[in-house]
Amino acid sequence: MEKVKARTLSGFMELLPPQQAQFERVKGILEETYSRYGFTPLDTPAIEASEVLLAKAGGETEKQIYRFTKGDSDLSLRFDLTVPLAKYVALHHNELAFPFRRYQIGKVYRGERAQRGRFREFYQADIDVIGDGALDIINEAEIPAIIYQTFTALGLNRFRIRVNNRKILNGFYEMLHWSHRAPDIMRIVDKLEKIGAEKVGLMLCTDLGLDEDAVGEIVRFMAIKGSNSQVLTALEEYRGRNEIFDQGLEELNTVVKYLSAFGVPEDHFTVDLTIARGLDYYTGTVYETVLLDHPEVGSICSGGRYDNLAEYYTDKQLPGVGISIGLTRLFYVLQEQNLLNKALPTSPADVLVLPMTEDLSPAIAFATACRGAGVKAQLYTEPKKFKAKMNYADRIGVPYVAFLGEDEVANGVVSLKDMVSGEQEKVALEAAPEWLREKVATRNEGTPIKE
Amino acid sequence: MEKVKARTLSGFMELLPPQQAQFERVKGILEETYSRYGFTPLDTPAIEASEVLLAKAGGETEKQIYRFTKGDSDLSLRFDLTVPLAKYVALHHNELAFPFRRYQIGKVYRGERAQRGRFREFYQADIDVIGDGALDIINEAEIPAIIYQTFTALGLNRFRIRVNNRKILNGFYEMLHWSHRAPDIMRIVDKLEKIGAEKVGLMLCTDLGLDEDAVGEIVRFMAIKGSNSQVLTALEEYRGRNEIFDQGLEELNTVVKYLSAFGVPEDHFTVDLTIARGLDYYTGTVYETVLLDHPEVGSICSGGRYDNLAEYYTDKQLPGVGISIGLTRLFYVLQEQNLLNKALPTSPADVLVLPMTEDLSPAIAFATACRGAGVKAQLYTEPKKFKAKMNYADRIGVPYVAFLGEDEVANGVVSLKDMVSGEQEKVALEAAPEWLREKVATRNEGTPIKE
Repeated sequence: MEKVKARTLSGFMELLPPQQAQFERVKGILEETYSRYGFTPLDTPAIEASEVLLAKAGGETEKQIYRFTKGDSDLSLRFDLTVPLAKYVALHHNELAFPFRRYQIGKVYRGERAQRGRFREFYQADIDVIGDGALDIINEAEIPAIIYQTFTALGLNRFRIRVNNRKILNGFYEMLHWSHRAPDIMRIVDKLEKIGAEKVGLMLCTDLGLDEDAVGEIVRFMAIKGSNSQVLTALEEYRGRNEIFDQGLEELNTVVKYLSAFGVPEDHFTVDLTIARGLDYYTGTVYETVLLDHPEVGSICSGGRYDNLAEYYTDKQLPGVGISIGLTRLFYVLQEQNLLNKALPTSPADVLVLPMTEDLSPAIAFATACRGAGVKAQLYTEPKKFKAKMNYADRIGVPYVAFLGEDEVANGVVSLKDMVSGEQEKVALEAAPEWLREKVATRNEGTPIKE
Repeated sequence: MEKVKARTLSGFMELLPPQQAQFERVKGILEETYSRYGFTPLDTPAIEASEVLLAKAGGETEKQIYRFTKGDSDLSLRFDLTVPLAKYVALHHNELAFPFRRYQIGKVYRGERAQRGRFREFYQADIDVIGDGALDIINEAEIPAIIYQTFTALGLNRFRIRVNNRKILNGFYEMLHWSHRAPDIMRIVDKLEKIGAEKVGLMLCTDLGLDEDAVGEIVRFMAIKGSNSQVLTALEEYRGRNEIFDQGLEELNTVVKYLSAFGVPEDHFTVDLTIARGLDYYTGTVYETVLLDHPEVGSICSGGRYDNLAEYYTDKQLPGVGISIGLTRLFYVLQEQNLLNKALPTSPADVLVLPMTEDLSPAIAFATACRGAGVKAQLYTEPKKFKAKMNYADRIGVPYVAFLGEDEVANGVVSLKDMVSGEQEKVALEAAPEWLREKVATRNEGTPIKE
């Protein structure tokens, strides 16, 4: 038979079992943390009607869409989880209670140019809180707490959440009478970290025609740095000149004030006036999260407050606040930077049960008892030489091997070999599952990330 | 702004939060059970190169594929999890240890004609054990044990696993010298339950030209019923006439023999000579699982033994055995048949924390403490009337509401209201998270299915 070459498309992450186990662990912690905050899990289709999915899209996004027809239907694969959420909330508005808090961890699709570390199919892990008509500012203060908890639970410590408020920026540009060019100004200011203040100033002059005074004001404003209270104090100097600015400053004060109550340490959180994010979408607090030792990775968790989640579908005003973790990309970076905790087992089984008798019943009974105790047990019954069996145990990285020979069966014990230390001991059959459960629980202690 | 009508494509399941919570519970139990047997989780792309995905496909399947081009690439959405597994094993053969045991729970896509209870996007929940060149028969005996454990863990009791062996059928048709028409014969015999023995006999005569003797033999064979030992005894009468038949009978005897060791009660398991399944694929033991009270649903978990998982990609012989649960369809049926356990909470939160003071810090601290204890806590801070807040608690179905007013804060207590009984009591602040954890654990006891 002529063979087809087996291959996986480039830009699509496909992991080997040990890496998949690590990925599942990371994903599991996101699910658990999001759940702890009372977010409900959602699962929307990967395919939507193009007219629905692309109601808002345009430009770069639209080009990346996987779009196709099936029968008479014009279909597209989702490119994020926000548009499906907007559709969901608009469609099921009457059946939902607001604030509606949902998390969704799912694959999205973007036909980007393939390059290292860029994926065409990738997981996003999103949370959003949606209000019906209004949404309290406290929700904007809780979000950094969730980001902090999530990354801390993963074992990450060297990260910082950057926060800003779009009203402060919008108000500031109104003060300067340059709000009509605010999006363009912000696009240039966004390059501050990369190209420096001088070049940003030059671009503001030459590209947008700002006068020296305005450029000076902007550069001075963006240079406001220091502790959160220092930044907030510096911002007080601008108070009273613009209503939107003042409102943004109030909000930022509230967010910062509640952060310690929410348990976010000051050194994990910084007010940063240079970040803007999603220019046509966010309207209040905005967030970015950076790895302190790997700034080149960019933000690993971003989001913000928006006023109209679903304006393309409904007249109802649905303000919200949300964040998104690019999980596939994050996992890729963690692998690349060697940040995954190698001490944690990645074997599918906790114990490999090797029957050494003709009758398999004792081995089957033991494996069943292990599973009943919550221990992942694999029965190995292939007719191979002992060496091949142990070689298999090594290859799957199983922490324990259980031997059940005539002697063991006669004496009501099982020989358990620790595959890391090489030690072997006999344990009473009825005590062994619990013995294993405790040992395995100890081995699984620790976070998936180890800095 | 002109609005686009929000809609979800027909044939795509999109659940409301309480139903999604139920679905997640069912899915979680499948993951846990599969893991307990030492299967490793896999996650392959939803999109594959068409040439790879359709190496084998043809006929009905091919028509249902979502196939499209992006740039120069001819792409298809996966229509099952078996072909991606075959690709994976062929591609990563050198990096895997055999037997390779994997589970995968993922969405697959088939553009079928939309009808009630049929889905175009649906979850399959598969396990497979793949050998390299050979695979021991015990794996075929373990599979029904896993099916039994899975459905029992879900809370289902009224089901039965039907088992047959394709070698017995193939050998039997060889005995009759009709093996050249075996697939056609089996297709007709498959209708036995629906149309009865007489009509099947007639079709075998008129459609395929079988003589009366052959038809008589087939009808007599298919009429073999009774306890497993009765059926096996009846089959002994055919022994010695055909090698393949004898081999199949040996295998079936082994599978049945080990089933009680594997803990599958006799009444949940029946040898059924009428089932054949996947005519061009399965080569040994085959399985079906039926709901005793809902036979109209058909098999809810099917599979079998095959000799060549990946023959379209590699010359390596990769025999295996696997089963698949159509999870989306199963969940749909459970909903329809009112089999989901309504006593289990579906709320995203275990406790809704209502601050009744100006300063939110005590409420935030309490919610944080709850989360630390593993209790899902949602802080409700919208400036609404008390009645609206309680109405929200009702709508999300939260089991407990925590009130923190001036009195409570001053006395170091929290008022906890049981939203089911309506009872309210004051609990010391530091004891309350553990108090809630225990109460909530009790409420979550029970299986997702309640017959």
